[in-house]
Amino acid sequence: MPRFSLHKRPPPIVLLTDFGYKDSYVGVMKGVIRGICPEADMLDLSHNIVPQDVAEAAFVLAASYRYFPTGAIFTCVVDPGVGTARAVLCMEANAQTFLAPDNGLLSVIADEVEPDQIRRVTSEEYYLESRSATFHGRDVFAPVAAHLAEGLPPEKLGPVMRHIQRLQLPNPVRAADGSLRGEIIYIDQFGNLITNIRAGTIRRSFSVPREELEVSVKRRTMMGLADTYADRPVGELMALVGSSGYLEVAVNRGSATQVLGCEKGDTVTLSPAQ
Amino acid sequence: MPRFSLHKRPPPIVLLTDFGYKDSYVGVMKGVIRGICPEADMLDLSHNIVPQDVAEAAFVLAASYRYFPTGAIFTCVVDPGVGTARAVLCMEANAQTFLAPDNGLLSVIADEVEPDQIRRVTSEEYYLESRSATFHGRDVFAPVAAHLAEGLPPEKLGPVMRHIQRLQLPNPVRAADGSLRGEIIYIDQFGNLITNIRAGTIRRSFSVPREELEVSVKRRTMMGLADTYADRPVGELMALVGSSGYLEVAVNRGSATQVLGCEKGDTVTLSPAQ
Amino acid sequence: MPRFSLHKRPPPIVLLTDFGYKDSYVGVMKGVIRGICPEADMLDLSHNIVPQDVAEAAFVLAASYRYFPTGAIFTCVVDPGVGTARAVLCMEANAQTFLAPDNGLLSVIADEVEPDQIRRVTSEEYYLESRSATFHGRDVFAPVAAHLAEGLPPEKLGPVMRHIQRLQLPNPVRAADGSLRGEIIYIDQFGNLITNIRAGTIRRSFSVPREELEVSVKRRTMMGLADTYADRPVGELMALVGSSGYLEVAVNRGSATQVLGCEKGDTVTLSPAQ
Repeated sequence: MPRFSLHKRPPPIVLLTDFGYKDSYVGVMKGVIRGICPEADMLDLSHNIVPQDVAEAAFVLAASYRYFPTGAIFTCVVDPGVGTARAVLCMEANAQTFLAPDNGLLSVIADEVEPDQIRRVTSEEYYLESRSATFHGRDVFAPVAAHLAEGLPPEKLGPVMRHIQRLQLPNPVRAADGSLRGEIIYIDQFGNLITNIRAGTIRRSFSVPREELEVSVKRRTMMGLADTYADRPVGELMALVGSSGYLEVAVNRGSATQVLGCEKGDTVTLSPAQ
Repeated sequence: MPRFSLHKRPPPIVLLTDFGYKDSYVGVMKGVIRGICPEADMLDLSHNIVPQDVAEAAFVLAASYRYFPTGAIFTCVVDPGVGTARAVLCMEANAQTFLAPDNGLLSVIADEVEPDQIRRVTSEEYYLESRSATFHGRDVFAPVAAHLAEGLPPEKLGPVMRHIQRLQLPNPVRAADGSLRGEIIYIDQFGNLITNIRAGTIRRSFSVPREELEVSVKRRTMMGLADTYADRPVGELMALVGSSGYLEVAVNRGSATQVLGCEKGDTVTLSPAQ
Repeated sequence: MPRFSLHKRPPPIVLLTDFGYKDSYVGVMKGVIRGICPEADMLDLSHNIVPQDVAEAAFVLAASYRYFPTGAIFTCVVDPGVGTARAVLCMEANAQTFLAPDNGLLSVIADEVEPDQIRRVTSEEYYLESRSATFHGRDVFAPVAAHLAEGLPPEKLGPVMRHIQRLQLPNPVRAADGSLRGEIIYIDQFGNLITNIRAGTIRRSFSVPREELEVSVKRRTMMGLADTYADRPVGELMALVGSSGYLEVAVNRGSATQVLGCEKGDTVTLSPAQ
């Protein structure tokens, strides 16, 4: 299927917010973007981050950005400090661009990838002309993202910024008895309980094979790590490394959160089987 | 980033419905649009209007349309009268086009902007060939919007219509004691209580500065109008003019609707501090 | 409005999943598609299928696909067997392409339309390079759909497959007394109760006119079939053939599921009025 077009589409703008799907806030951001960049390609990562839960947004972004193409412009608006003096950041990493409030949302990526450059967005000529104090998604983030998609170099947005806010994310802890204690950091649509224990950490922490590990949560213990949900009988609890590379607790064709009554923050322990 | 394309994208079709995100109704409308206008650019304003709540749709549209570019084709389907003799309207205003049932959904915009032209859509050649009596979103609105996006002049859709349905929207009332009584007309994702009192009305009604006004709702009184959510301590109730230009009641990093137990229709009073 | 572009947009990729709108799973699929097919046109049919409810997905797809244009690539991921040996199917029917797990999701369409060809997708060179065992939406379906949109012929995906999984869908039954017994197979956003009794079945089963039929559900009986919701007084129960061609029970400006307390699977009986 040969193509003859000289047409080059702008890189995608990927939206991540806590604005939900009832209000018109996301739609209005898209209207603003479309007005500035008529060819803008807009993709939704999620708009159902728990309102003002910056850590959840940081996790979702960190687990997702590698699956988007080079040039993608992530526009992340989970912003409890809107209207305060908190900075707006433009970070370049992984050959992509990230816009977010300076509230820790980008700190996971800033930790993982050596950022080429982080800038504080200060060039108000790229904002909407009349700016509210309460909806920077519409008035600041959307127009800045659209100008980037139109080809504006990030250098035009503002000065380099050396220190950004970091999230105090819970890390798994190695206990005296050799076990690894993590916690649930995300519960997905299927009720899978996703922990902060990564596959690499498991490999480095234990020399026994996967089937000789056990996982405990809420007084329930699962023997071995499964490879896939279907490795266990229907309805049975299991632990496995999920698609984002984190240890998770799941139920084949069921909901682990319903079975266990878990919440974010609950402890999950991984140790060699006794 | 120079562009060499001769390609001109059609104006965006902006969808506003009460169809929700579970059913395939919105998806099917997009399929129909895509079949008629292969290059159509479709944006979602909201699909979570309370089912059949025409006044809510009218408010959401009125607060949003100015943020979309010239040429946008708003396609609004909140339509409790589907299948009756109610007209379908095509209104041109603000250099944009609005399609909606004649049930008051467009009356706020018709009030605010002198409409260039309102037409009754009667040209059935632009509908789907086999038309149901219960899903005009798919059978009438989607194909008509797609034909407009393809360049069909609105004049082809039907005759000019002089009188359209108006919503009896509650207006704020000036009480004998000088206070302004409005009501909650929308509650957003964050629990912010948005009233029908506009910034301009406040300016015209009171000569005292904003910090000398007080706002009462459900026996709670807030002193002064804040500029932004972060102007008040975390968890505290406040009143401010929100991003759409309406007085709203909010809680810094919290939900005013949870704190107050408010519903749409509850009274909000604004008066000079005593 | 003449167009001069030589640009030809790829056919739409239509997504149907049970991934919901909270997690980033759908967004990540779109990121993968965009990376392979920069001009991909992605439309959402629904992402709120009840988790792992293959029959619901099959119904939604069957009621919708005819409204999408020729060439559409339906990418359906309701996949309780992910990670097992279940096949991934690529079916060509209705001049469209359908990707889905071999779990019955496509069997309604395979029944209705003589499929040109059904293939088992086995060509791993079109998958993501590093493939998880739990998220084939991202690792298999998204990249394969994107390659099809780029023009890959389905023959490249794998060998023809003769026998696919069929759903045991409930069919309406003709009772000894001449009545037709069906059941509720879907409840929509408005609370309309959609049954498995199709308009054609009604025509073939009864010689009396529509107004002389009666419909019973949960000890409530409705006389005659309405043409549209507005044919009955506000708040009243009614039966009618809905926009997808199935008998449904509805309430004018209300919710039949709230009035009746119905669930999927409840019996609905249609018979000549006594």
